[in-house]
Amino acid sequence: QRIGELDSFSATDRVLVRVQDFTPEKADQLIWLRARVHTSRAKGKQCFLVLRQQQFNVQALVAVGDRASKQMVKFAANITKESIVDVEAFVRKVEQKIESCSQQDVELHIERIFVVSQAEARLPLQLEDAVRPDGEGEEEGRATVNQDTKLDNRVIDLRTTTSQAIFRLQSGVCMLFRDTLTKKGFVEIQTPKIISAASEGGANVFTVSYFKTSAYLAQSPQLYKQMCICADFDKVFCVGPVFRAEDSNTHRHLTEFVGLDIEMAFSYHYHEVIDSITDTMVQIFKGLRDNFQTEIQMVNKQFPSEPFKFLEPTLRLEYTEGLAMLHEAGVEMGDEEDLSTPNEKLLGRLVKEKYDTDFYVLDKYPLAVRPFYTMPDPNNPKYSNSYDMFMRGEEILSGAQRVHDAQLLTDRAIHHQIDLEKIKAYIDSFRYGAPPHGGGGIGLERVCMLYLGLHNIRQTSMFPRDPKRLTP
Amino acid sequence: QRIGELDSFSATDRVLVRVQDFTPEKADQLIWLRARVHTSRAKGKQCFLVLRQQQFNVQALVAVGDRASKQMVKFAANITKESIVDVEAFVRKVEQKIESCSQQDVELHIERIFVVSQAEARLPLQLEDAVRPDGEGEEEGRATVNQDTKLDNRVIDLRTTTSQAIFRLQSGVCMLFRDTLTKKGFVEIQTPKIISAASEGGANVFTVSYFKTSAYLAQSPQLYKQMCICADFDKVFCVGPVFRAEDSNTHRHLTEFVGLDIEMAFSYHYHEVIDSITDTMVQIFKGLRDNFQTEIQMVNKQFPSEPFKFLEPTLRLEYTEGLAMLHEAGVEMGDEEDLSTPNEKLLGRLVKEKYDTDFYVLDKYPLAVRPFYTMPDPNNPKYSNSYDMFMRGEEILSGAQRVHDAQLLTDRAIHHQIDLEKIKAYIDSFRYGAPPHGGGGIGLERVCMLYLGLHNIRQTSMFPRDPKRLTP
Repeated sequence: QRIGELDSFSATDRVLVRVQDFTPEKADQLIWLRARVHTSRAKGKQCFLVLRQQQFNVQALVAVGDRASKQMVKFAANITKESIVDVEAFVRKVEQKIESCSQQDVELHIERIFVVSQAEARLPLQLEDAVRPDGEGEEEGRATVNQDTKLDNRVIDLRTTTSQAIFRLQSGVCMLFRDTLTKKGFVEIQTPKIISAASEGGANVFTVSYFKTSAYLAQSPQLYKQMCICADFDKVFCVGPVFRAEDSNTHRHLTEFVGLDIEMAFSYHYHEVIDSITDTMVQIFKGLRDNFQTEIQMVNKQFPSEPFKFLEPTLRLEYTEGLAMLHEAGVEMGDEEDLSTPNEKLLGRLVKEKYDTDFYVLDKYPLAVRPFYTMPDPNNPKYSNSYDMFMRGEEILSGAQRVHDAQLLTDRAIHHQIDLEKIKAYIDSFRYGAPPHGGGGIGLERVCMLYLGLHNIRQTSMFPRDPKRLTP
Repeated sequence: QRIGELDSFSATDRVLVRVQDFTPEKADQLIWLRARVHTSRAKGKQCFLVLRQQQFNVQALVAVGDRASKQMVKFAANITKESIVDVEAFVRKVEQKIESCSQQDVELHIERIFVVSQAEARLPLQLEDAVRPDGEGEEEGRATVNQDTKLDNRVIDLRTTTSQAIFRLQSGVCMLFRDTLTKKGFVEIQTPKIISAASEGGANVFTVSYFKTSAYLAQSPQLYKQMCICADFDKVFCVGPVFRAEDSNTHRHLTEFVGLDIEMAFSYHYHEVIDSITDTMVQIFKGLRDNFQTEIQMVNKQFPSEPFKFLEPTLRLEYTEGLAMLHEAGVEMGDEEDLSTPNEKLLGRLVKEKYDTDFYVLDKYPLAVRPFYTMPDPNNPKYSNSYDMFMRGEEILSGAQRVHDAQLLTDRAIHHQIDLEKIKAYIDSFRYGAPPHGGGGIGLERVCMLYLGLHNIRQTSMFPRDPKRLTP
């Protein structure tokens, strides 16, 4: 049952069949299959196994008879759950549909069985517990698995149909993001994560020992994507980790997450940037809706949610309009105040009621609540050419037209009492001709969480990092 | 000449024409263009400008006459190089081809000109110096720009045709890598960069302050991609930064680079993994050859090199065969010794001579020179199921079949005197059933450098990091 029982080092002519290909057309064929033992149940002279590959599973049977001895049935019955086995078996049609398996019309009659990799007998969690919807089976005393146990044993938890679906969908979001932007003429760039100066004022930044000196982990690719615009790449995007040393223990904060970043030069108005980003988001939403329905349904089984709604073109509200809706709903807040998380969510509900969309843009934020490099509104100095985008009432993107003039940037930094020495390289990037430009950064895990209607970002980060979690 | 001279905040109906679209068909049209002033030269009552967008440029003319005053010609002549301007101009056919421009058949007769963003008069480097091939124009006393000056002023250096071509090609490598693997059924994963324990024994790792504790920067996504295989994702890839705290100041080492990583379960032989990786590389080479010829030629103008050659199927040599070739060439080295960099290069030349390929695989390395998690060769304990891949005689990928059995992995770790406590989480990942699997990690910057026949990895890293460079 260890390495060598099956000689996995020498090539063979055997063709392994995939579980999802076991259909009635395969009936009576003798095949080879490699799969996990999902469950096993001995019953007299027979042993019933459910063999699993990802979300697909099939019933298999070892029965004492011509080809199988008592010993073989016993051997099969003793194979631990989650072990990987190779079986040679005949595919046989069944008379009654096997409701508990994805392959309902056939079962496998096993001729030979080998253990490729044996799982330890005691599993830290049971897959069927890990996918049970909250509340289901409570009366029968069935367990669910708490999130820390799942994350501590991620290598098993990721095998559940829910996890498989979430991360295949996440892979799809990245692909749709890049494909859409590539078609629009954007160039992918790679930006450094180790930087010499904390970019945005110095708060919430991780420090790295760098040979005999210190460095920082980039909180965003902001400076670098802007440098690429100043270097004539015109339209750029990047996908990569961003780091935030924030001691926030909430459902939507991570200390390391994946940023989908966009930056582009525009011709005459920063709304050209908003239009490019919202169209990219719409292409992502459509791609998920059209190509990831199986995954969406699988996640919905455990975590039910309403289908994600969006409009074309995307709804764009001005900050003052959003504020007016909140005032009307009884919220008291000042004109130049930022949205609190509860107000953000309330506004999301109000927008959903009024416009029937889960995705919208809030444009023209008060200048006072945005970073120093945000372009002021030329028509009203209280506001700025900046915007956030929301999914199901939570922020997924923050962006703006950037100040592209070194002198104005210096003035704005002084106004924000930022040490000019520390941002000298940044400001100098704009001294040799810089086109008007803007962009934004999207949180990948948030997009996945909110698209699927989940409630904790740790579900959409494969190996989440927060102030209390650094493992696995 | 500051913001506001051209009101770039209000939408207009103007359509900006791209420089590459200025062809004789556009003759006599009145158009708008936004571009950089590449050069300007006043000559009596005229001012000749070359206007540039990325690798394209066009000649433009302001002449005293009906539409332009003396003052306007003077204004145009005084616009600093690299400034961004908007011009309204008539496209006019020219009788003699303009050899110095990409648009040779037309020139622009400027009616109006505005400065969108003015460059400082003193540029830290001249673009024409930065693209001059080594040695060219030396007699005329023409300068070239040394690499540190280029990197210190990357925002200007990236505007050269050579840099534009290199990084567009790099973007292509990433796209081809992902597209090929996605078609093969691989899933893209995102792995954490901040980790709690130094994965590969603890040497050469950067330390991060993490709230009240310490953490490390991942030297590779090794553990995480293997966990994904143990979690039934079957075939995975990831593209992301990897960090090496090596004090190596060579032409091919960076402290931060982009890893293109692959990991996959296989059925019966680890050569299935090699075949998947080599086919992916071949698809990249073909994609570059077929779709990036313009970029390759542009880089070749400054840095001439032979076209990159590869075979189908990819040449695979065993380590002992490589050693025999080196011995025959007079190199003395032991059977279980690793290849030194000079021997690696020499072997590359010998392989090129004998097989006419710039890409090959060296298979079955001595077990002694590989990490503890490498699967030993079951037929000869001196060797291992591991391989490196080479481009133009330099290593671009290191990979292997991994030990997927917790007990054998423990034995190997003890043999390598690795502290078991520190790799407990890693070993535990294999306790619940793990399929045989293998993979490898490719250095993106090396692939680009060697494909283009360049000689320094800093040319193919947009913002390189080495022990002495952390900026910009």
